[in-house]
Amino acid sequence: MPSVETRTSPPPVDHRRDLPASGLRRGIATVCLSGTLEDKLSAAAAAGFDGVEIFENDLIASPLSPSQVRGRCADLGLSIDLYQPFRDFEAVGPELLAANLRRAVHKFDVMEQLGAHTVLVCSSVSPAAVNDDDLAAEQLRTLAALAAERGVRIAYEALAWGRFVSTYEHSWDIVRRADHPALGLCLDSFHVLSRGSDPSGISNIPGAKLFFLQLADAPRLEMDVLQWSRHHRLFPGQGAFDLPAFVGHVLAAGYDGPLSLEVFNDVFRQADPERAAVDAMRSLLALQEGLQVGGPAALTERVRVRDLPPAPELAGHAFTELAVDDVSGPQVARALAALGFMHTGQHRSKPVQLWQEGAARVLLNAAAPSGAGPGGAALCALAVESVDPVASARRAELLLAPVLPRTHGADEAILSAVAAPDGTSVFFCRTGANDATSWLSDFILTDATPGAGAGLTKIDHVALSQPFDHFDEAALFYRAVLGLEPETITEFAAPFGLVRSRAVADPAHEVRIALSVALLRRGEWAPGVPDPQHVAFATDDAIASARAVRALGAPLLQIPGNYYDDLDARLGLPAELLAAMRQYSVLYDRDEHGEFLHFYTEILGSRVFFEVVQRIGGYAGYGAANAPVRMAAQRRLRIARVDGSTAHSEGHESAPVGSVPRSS
Amino acid sequence: MPSVETRTSPPPVDHRRDLPASGLRRGIATVCLSGTLEDKLSAAAAAGFDGVEIFENDLIASPLSPSQVRGRCADLGLSIDLYQPFRDFEAVGPELLAANLRRAVHKFDVMEQLGAHTVLVCSSVSPAAVNDDDLAAEQLRTLAALAAERGVRIAYEALAWGRFVSTYEHSWDIVRRADHPALGLCLDSFHVLSRGSDPSGISNIPGAKLFFLQLADAPRLEMDVLQWSRHHRLFPGQGAFDLPAFVGHVLAAGYDGPLSLEVFNDVFRQADPERAAVDAMRSLLALQEGLQVGGPAALTERVRVRDLPPAPELAGHAFTELAVDDVSGPQVARALAALGFMHTGQHRSKPVQLWQEGAARVLLNAAAPSGAGPGGAALCALAVESVDPVASARRAELLLAPVLPRTHGADEAILSAVAAPDGTSVFFCRTGANDATSWLSDFILTDATPGAGAGLTKIDHVALSQPFDHFDEAALFYRAVLGLEPETITEFAAPFGLVRSRAVADPAHEVRIALSVALLRRGEWAPGVPDPQHVAFATDDAIASARAVRALGAPLLQIPGNYYDDLDARLGLPAELLAAMRQYSVLYDRDEHGEFLHFYTEILGSRVFFEVVQRIGGYAGYGAANAPVRMAAQRRLRIARVDGSTAHSEGHESAPVGSVPRSS
Repeated sequence: MPSVETRTSPPPVDHRRDLPASGLRRGIATVCLSGTLEDKLSAAAAAGFDGVEIFENDLIASPLSPSQVRGRCADLGLSIDLYQPFRDFEAVGPELLAANLRRAVHKFDVMEQLGAHTVLVCSSVSPAAVNDDDLAAEQLRTLAALAAERGVRIAYEALAWGRFVSTYEHSWDIVRRADHPALGLCLDSFHVLSRGSDPSGISNIPGAKLFFLQLADAPRLEMDVLQWSRHHRLFPGQGAFDLPAFVGHVLAAGYDGPLSLEVFNDVFRQADPERAAVDAMRSLLALQEGLQVGGPAALTERVRVRDLPPAPELAGHAFTELAVDDVSGPQVARALAALGFMHTGQHRSKPVQLWQEGAARVLLNAAAPSGAGPGGAALCALAVESVDPVASARRAELLLAPVLPRTHGADEAILSAVAAPDGTSVFFCRTGANDATSWLSDFILTDATPGAGAGLTKIDHVALSQPFDHFDEAALFYRAVLGLEPETITEFAAPFGLVRSRAVADPAHEVRIALSVALLRRGEWAPGVPDPQHVAFATDDAIASARAVRALGAPLLQIPGNYYDDLDARLGLPAELLAAMRQYSVLYDRDEHGEFLHFYTEILGSRVFFEVVQRIGGYAGYGAANAPVRMAAQRRLRIARVDGSTAHSEGHESAPVGSVPRSS
Repeated sequence: MPSVETRTSPPPVDHRRDLPASGLRRGIATVCLSGTLEDKLSAAAAAGFDGVEIFENDLIASPLSPSQVRGRCADLGLSIDLYQPFRDFEAVGPELLAANLRRAVHKFDVMEQLGAHTVLVCSSVSPAAVNDDDLAAEQLRTLAALAAERGVRIAYEALAWGRFVSTYEHSWDIVRRADHPALGLCLDSFHVLSRGSDPSGISNIPGAKLFFLQLADAPRLEMDVLQWSRHHRLFPGQGAFDLPAFVGHVLAAGYDGPLSLEVFNDVFRQADPERAAVDAMRSLLALQEGLQVGGPAALTERVRVRDLPPAPELAGHAFTELAVDDVSGPQVARALAALGFMHTGQHRSKPVQLWQEGAARVLLNAAAPSGAGPGGAALCALAVESVDPVASARRAELLLAPVLPRTHGADEAILSAVAAPDGTSVFFCRTGANDATSWLSDFILTDATPGAGAGLTKIDHVALSQPFDHFDEAALFYRAVLGLEPETITEFAAPFGLVRSRAVADPAHEVRIALSVALLRRGEWAPGVPDPQHVAFATDDAIASARAVRALGAPLLQIPGNYYDDLDARLGLPAELLAAMRQYSVLYDRDEHGEFLHFYTEILGSRVFFEVVQRIGGYAGYGAANAPVRMAAQRRLRIARVDGSTAHSEGHESAPVGSVPRSS
């Protein structure tokens, strides 16, 4: 039921038993996660991973001896699939070779205690190495022979920035020359795809020689590949690489080891490891679903995530729910009324009001905590129309979305809800269906007769500021759980720092969710959490809607005259349109597909505001170019309120300055 | 006097009247600073700037009309030196030219109201532009003619990523061809130096054609130059560019406009603009001091920062002061005693103890707030030995270091102190001088007879975790104010995220201060502020010192056995040395100059710990490679303390996990 309380911290769960069955083993490198080695192992196990790669530095800093780590992993049900990395081994002179073999023996000792059977040897970056493939192969063969005596395998990997060996083709050539059963390849999707290598050749490598597979996604960045790799890797599905195709080639070759994540990411390194591990597992489940492997039926069956229903088609936003209190409730209600909404229903058992205009529905819930302080309001839930709400909910649960507890009265609808990464509840429903997903029957309709309103037709999008640690997690969450497609990332300079923004939408653009985050976590000077959230309603005529809501007394955000002077200079819009936009504080944007007219209310109850948008033609964006103007205007209003003045009625008068908090 | 209270927020000051006299005008672009336009102008004025560049987007988002901005600037004593930027003007077809000229007329209208006389036109990045220098010159001449009618000048700038014009030589060639008095060049140090252009040719350009000079420093990064420019610029002296040489060429050419900062930086965009503006001004004062211009005496005189004494030579750390309370004071005192220190003096009027071993002196101040909570301790002051403390203090004040209020009793030393960017007090003194800078006379000596101690000889370095917003500010602060040289930046992966570290030291390495900061501001999961700080003492024999302090019961931080196994594998150190290191938890590092042996105490009073270091040969670092091991060990101790157990005595036993705070 919509009026469920929003939970930001679902109870911890051991996800292993909840995971859909699958024939592929899944692993994660400890370097992906924050914390001590003990923290990392616990998090990997709780998220349901089968195994881990032990990153050497994590072991070195641990008070657990290698055999104690082995025991800990066994207790947690984790295999140790790889010990890594062993650097700068091959193609050196005899003296250095002896020292390197000595290093290797020490590593084999550690691995024996760990119970790990494969070690990653990455191609040399040492200035002491020489460009001699035969020598490299010979020395790797020596290493492999030593390893074989100890029951260990060598997985040789071409680093994208290796001094002489930087492609998988080259590393395979050396492994083939060395020709030792204990020597094979480690393939890492980042090293292959960052260089633009064609991965299709992988399917020609004998599967038995593919000892290990490391997976990472990444955004396309124009920068030094080493820095790109060390700071910006992402979990599969969060970046720009075609990982389903890549993994398809690897499986087609006959690889039968685990899919193991190795992601160096500045944010994940700081984030709660339990959450990051769940995000990681979700990325692998979604990847498996996207894999299209040819070959024998047994392989197809092994890859398949059993029981996972495909994402049902979505038909729009059913409603959006705001948590309000005694102070903010009436304020938001007045604003909705002034936007042409009618109070059309009252919940049978809870203090929840339904407001409606066209197909746009907003619930005001006086029983849900807003988290925005006294007098605050917050967007606590969004509901999407699903053609199969039960399947949507089942899919969400199997993809490790935290399922929210449901409370409902007799004869009330039973709606499934899950928590998005920012804590927003996500409901799946089918408005008007004659079953438990028809939430409208929980409301007693009022006598309100919908009038002309202000021409608002539906919810265009919901805009949610994301917690810093969970922006990439959120995009993957909506992609995997709801089947929405992440759109292009945009960045813009807001008055208090850079903002990154990315929307997710269904193919028909009936459900749009705009996610944003500060590029650097906010400090004391910049307004921090909670950042504003908003609901945008669609109209077919923004000017007419603006005129109507102004007449109804809506608290519209006033846009500076300089904005319109600049618009005029840049675009030479028709004078009449420009004058109307200036009069009603309507903003403008355009892209190659069409135009966008939109206006905002002031912030209501400390966090939430409304927007009204008109999309002309196929305009695909969200008016991000105008966001800094909006933010500066909202900022001035806040300062003005702190000072007890009313800057929004000042027009070109000066806003008070200097009343901002000082950082210490 | 050392026992002054540490102030983290000095009172706001209008720095204009305090600035040393100079014949150069100084400016700053509004885009450098966080906040609304009003915030930025106030901050620039308070820091003593003469003028500003108005960034168009700041104006567009402001409710102040251009003429109101002019009035605001006049009230604040700021000239508007530049309006910027005007993009994608030149080398286009006739239709687009007409639209661009229309845009220009609008800008000239705005400039007229602003009272700005120079507009920045940057070289085109438009796909609509053609590669035709004659056409570019002709169209810029047309623009200049239009500008001249309005009393405006065009400053043409080659963006480093301009489509056809990307070097200053090329932009100068086009300006020369256009040959119009209202058309000249804008030079930007980033655009010139990021491309590796030779700036010496600038001195051959007629000074009258140099209309504007924008200054930015930057670290050397291997990345897309546009992204480098937009995110990573720094104030002069904070990066890797040779700005004194660059500006020298510009002044030698006869440029007589302002030195104006244009710095796009992700951190500064979020930081308190008043502090960032002071940092910016300090960077220009330090730059001026470093300028060595040839030419007429009048020019030399114009460049000179009058009254600014050169940084006096420093001879070492005089003392370091810790703020303690009733709980942490005895704990720290016990630790010092166990490190071989003696309680050698008691302050005449304040609850301050002097502890000493060799030339290492630590003050424990029970009257200064630690800011680390009950039972906490913090490093509140550092004191350097200056050959001329009065000149050091005068220099600090003229470089806008916040001067701390001084309280002292009759007959007590009068020491000048300033606040470093992290709030640490910095004292200048001359221990043993027979004057007011001889702080030792404030202490009544105890009867303690210094014994053998543990062989600690002096303070090697002080290590300070920096507030996220002020890391680059801090490096410049110590460079400019104390004359210390910033060393190479290192980054390493700590258990809770990446850490950036940079030390500053005097040429003789008598004063070393190691600054560190999390690469991303810490969130809820990672241990955040306050990060640990520490004082490192020098020894000539780390093993002997470790043995001695262990015997005295010092709370040494225990290092995992895995660390020594790895050390053995990597370096093959003599078995006896390795065994001793393992026994006494001594860590090891080496560089091309020498070796480094060091050990740590546990954290005392929630924030502070001590280190003992032995430098062998010319080892220049700080053991950063071992910091993650130290951090993991300290982290485990904290968890163990929360759980009430004693993990540090467990050796290879498992530390409790799972008791860490959950982020919501």
